[in-house]
Amino acid sequence: MAGNKIPEDTARREFLQGAGATAVAAMGTPKWMTGFVREKLGITRSAIPGLRAEDADAIRAEIEKRHDESVQRLRTWIKLPSIAAENRGMHEGCELMMQMLREAGFGGVWKMTTDGQPGVFATLDAGAPKTLGLYFMYDVKQADPSEWTSPPFEAALVEKPGLGKVMMGRGAVNQKGPEATFLAALHAIRGAGKKPPVNLVLVAEGEEEIGSPHFPQVVRRPQVLEALRKCVGVTMPFAAQDMDGSVTTYLGAKGVIELELVSSGEKWGRGPRRDVHSSNKARLDSPAWHLVEALATLVTPDGNDPAIEGFTAKARPLSAAEKKMIAIAAKRLDENTAKKGMGVQHWVHDVSWEQALELLVSKPTVNIEGLVGGYTGPGGKTILPGRAVAKLDLRLVPDMTAKESLELLKAHLAKKGFGDIEVNMTGGYDPTSTSADAKIMVAEETVYKRHEIDPVVMPRLAGSWPGYVFTGEPLKMAASHFGLGHGNGAHAPDEYYTIESKNPKVQGIDGAAYSHVEYLYEIAASA
Amino acid sequence: MAGNKIPEDTARREFLQGAGATAVAAMGTPKWMTGFVREKLGITRSAIPGLRAEDADAIRAEIEKRHDESVQRLRTWIKLPSIAAENRGMHEGCELMMQMLREAGFGGVWKMTTDGQPGVFATLDAGAPKTLGLYFMYDVKQADPSEWTSPPFEAALVEKPGLGKVMMGRGAVNQKGPEATFLAALHAIRGAGKKPPVNLVLVAEGEEEIGSPHFPQVVRRPQVLEALRKCVGVTMPFAAQDMDGSVTTYLGAKGVIELELVSSGEKWGRGPRRDVHSSNKARLDSPAWHLVEALATLVTPDGNDPAIEGFTAKARPLSAAEKKMIAIAAKRLDENTAKKGMGVQHWVHDVSWEQALELLVSKPTVNIEGLVGGYTGPGGKTILPGRAVAKLDLRLVPDMTAKESLELLKAHLAKKGFGDIEVNMTGGYDPTSTSADAKIMVAEETVYKRHEIDPVVMPRLAGSWPGYVFTGEPLKMAASHFGLGHGNGAHAPDEYYTIESKNPKVQGIDGAAYSHVEYLYEIAASA
Repeated sequence: MAGNKIPEDTARREFLQGAGATAVAAMGTPKWMTGFVREKLGITRSAIPGLRAEDADAIRAEIEKRHDESVQRLRTWIKLPSIAAENRGMHEGCELMMQMLREAGFGGVWKMTTDGQPGVFATLDAGAPKTLGLYFMYDVKQADPSEWTSPPFEAALVEKPGLGKVMMGRGAVNQKGPEATFLAALHAIRGAGKKPPVNLVLVAEGEEEIGSPHFPQVVRRPQVLEALRKCVGVTMPFAAQDMDGSVTTYLGAKGVIELELVSSGEKWGRGPRRDVHSSNKARLDSPAWHLVEALATLVTPDGNDPAIEGFTAKARPLSAAEKKMIAIAAKRLDENTAKKGMGVQHWVHDVSWEQALELLVSKPTVNIEGLVGGYTGPGGKTILPGRAVAKLDLRLVPDMTAKESLELLKAHLAKKGFGDIEVNMTGGYDPTSTSADAKIMVAEETVYKRHEIDPVVMPRLAGSWPGYVFTGEPLKMAASHFGLGHGNGAHAPDEYYTIESKNPKVQGIDGAAYSHVEYLYEIAASA
Repeated sequence: MAGNKIPEDTARREFLQGAGATAVAAMGTPKWMTGFVREKLGITRSAIPGLRAEDADAIRAEIEKRHDESVQRLRTWIKLPSIAAENRGMHEGCELMMQMLREAGFGGVWKMTTDGQPGVFATLDAGAPKTLGLYFMYDVKQADPSEWTSPPFEAALVEKPGLGKVMMGRGAVNQKGPEATFLAALHAIRGAGKKPPVNLVLVAEGEEEIGSPHFPQVVRRPQVLEALRKCVGVTMPFAAQDMDGSVTTYLGAKGVIELELVSSGEKWGRGPRRDVHSSNKARLDSPAWHLVEALATLVTPDGNDPAIEGFTAKARPLSAAEKKMIAIAAKRLDENTAKKGMGVQHWVHDVSWEQALELLVSKPTVNIEGLVGGYTGPGGKTILPGRAVAKLDLRLVPDMTAKESLELLKAHLAKKGFGDIEVNMTGGYDPTSTSADAKIMVAEETVYKRHEIDPVVMPRLAGSWPGYVFTGEPLKMAASHFGLGHGNGAHAPDEYYTIESKNPKVQGIDGAAYSHVEYLYEIAASA
């Protein structure tokens, strides 16, 4: 689901492979230092609050020493895919992540059963005054090996022109790479003889990619709520950097509903219950046409604006402050790169770049993910199908809720004469919102700026992640993503995560791990 | 395509498994006689024109003697599937049929290359005054083995309760079974030391199931046209009997167009050219929605009546004579059996049985065979697909033509703003019409009536077959189907053809072969 990283996002500016990058690559610095410029860090490391220079050096040395171990951890993880949509490798994947958490220093690691795949609750008590919440996922998106240039579950190291050495595999960036990088940070801190500067409370799930249907059952257990209430906020490890090193942060995310609309002769009581010869269309209703007609009522005739009655009524318009953020983002992000990345020539309604970003952030959507009915093979087959399915996702903005939106969809279909069409919600949740002045957001920004990165701040991610369980009732906490590093291809073929960067502005796995060290110290020092 | 036999047709009355059938089965008659009652034939055989009683006996004895050989021929044929939609086994299938034709006595057998799969032209010169045309196909419909109770290409003999021994496999009834049965008739005539009473001119194709796109290239070669012009008509071997032994004949067939509508960002110039993250729906057009909106313009809002501009303008209404045929058919055919066979509760618009048959015969249709776009696997996948496809078939009645109908569809889409949607016609042809007093129709009826079968006569088959190449310009010949015997499941799982019938009214493969012998003599004797 999530796509907490949108693979085609607007921020994919071309990496300018210039003399600077070449010079750094030629300097003979240790491998983890490529893309993590010691000189630059030297200037700023004294500014890391509560982290003495010698400790910083020791932790960085540990990261370097453990480079191969970190890479191997990620490879091991990618090689064991857990795919909830296919109910594949779920038990093994949960156990593996639990083991990795124990090895990284979590003293308590508990499997949390749900009505679906199990979640995980884990705590690391460092005896620190402050506690940080963490959100992990152990599942990955499906992958069709025929679409990949390197097998999706082999986790091969591949040289990517203009970038460096990347690990290619499903989950590389979404989300095993960043999560394994965070664990590498914990190993390094311990390896340097230190305790983490904050306590950690981790909650994880194995159904993120199917819409987190049972994650509330993990989070809303009393002992988990109690532990989370002690946290300053909840962070998801992330590879926030684009190819040019820039970072975009998001003050929340859209909500989502994923569902199937199923039209069948069986439920309808009209047309055939199974596929029959197509000549019978002359005397029989068609469940496939019934579905098409129902779909056509859900959007405006151009297919762009939701037409489900009442669906957008509670959609909160952008505030002046949010519009200003987007106006700034529109100037800083490159329209052509965004269009090129997605292979598009026009935005919807031919709007401007700034308007396209406003829509991306603020517009509720009704999207067709897939259509599948009757004969789907090569050529044709003269059947009148007894059943047809549309897979949809609906994106929600505050103050819309998943529950209300689903009810509105059902009521709309019933009113329009399609009450027989099954609405099978497979996952989804409410939008997420976090204030720009939340402690975790401020800490993020401080770390990024120390790296001379001025993040583009967006009011909201157009993708979705289940942060609402933290930002909504009853916790009402801040929730966000953090981490240097770069990857791409979430939900797409050739997903990758950067291991060794040739670009001094883009961190590889070691530099990304160190950014988590900095972040933890920043949180520890926050007011 | 064809479905010259509609598997769920109206004529599937329940076979009443009564004392008569049991008695016959227990009589100890030779196996080929089950379902082919010697006593009854004894009464009528003297009536077969030009066939002396002792020759009839000799031919029947040959059919009996060669039973295993006939069954093996059909099995060999089914085991070598030629599926044009998958470009599978085409060369081998064509060669095998040519070999079978040579073995059955065709003196000239030529492979006819086309722009697609090759056809076949064959002649058998018996030195007779009359010549009969034959239409064969060597391709079969696709089959998904997971849906079958016996593997579709194993051609297993299976006991079917209430019927007898059947051969189960793709092509068993459509059309290898009836065709192999016709060849068995030729083998028996020769085995009895006789020549066929008529000369034969056979044309065949390997693309019937994809709409016969290149069959005209076979038929319209000068030497083929010349040979066909000598024929009294063209017959396709058929298993015309229902489970209760009854027969329906058709004075033609609907025409058909099979096509794919392809909506893509590539062609549209809007939306993405490949799948992108679904969150981008907020700022991008969707080729999948574009397809849905286009589809919705093709039919009335209930999905039942074609709304393509001009499409039905040339549809000839039923004549008084045709309506009378249907009124009679409505009384003789059982509505509940038809509904039960297809798993339906209501006809379109809740019309009566007679009206449902009128629609079946006379109504042009726009049918969705399949929908396939974006993610079609289990669960969901948050993508905005760059491409979506609808597979349609359009059925045509006189005086509509395939060419004009296709042009009207394209013009309609362009006018409605969907000119970018590709219309890829994969096959199809004009409607077929043959007069009730054509010699081949009269001969058919005579043979059926000799077997005490009073055929239900329908103005037109709702399915389609490429008979237009014979009935249309330039040949303007009669074309029809003939043959006793029974099978079912064309285009469906568990397709079968009856080998040994336990029902005295239903012929197995031997009785069906003998019906072709009778038919050839009837044609030879026709005025």
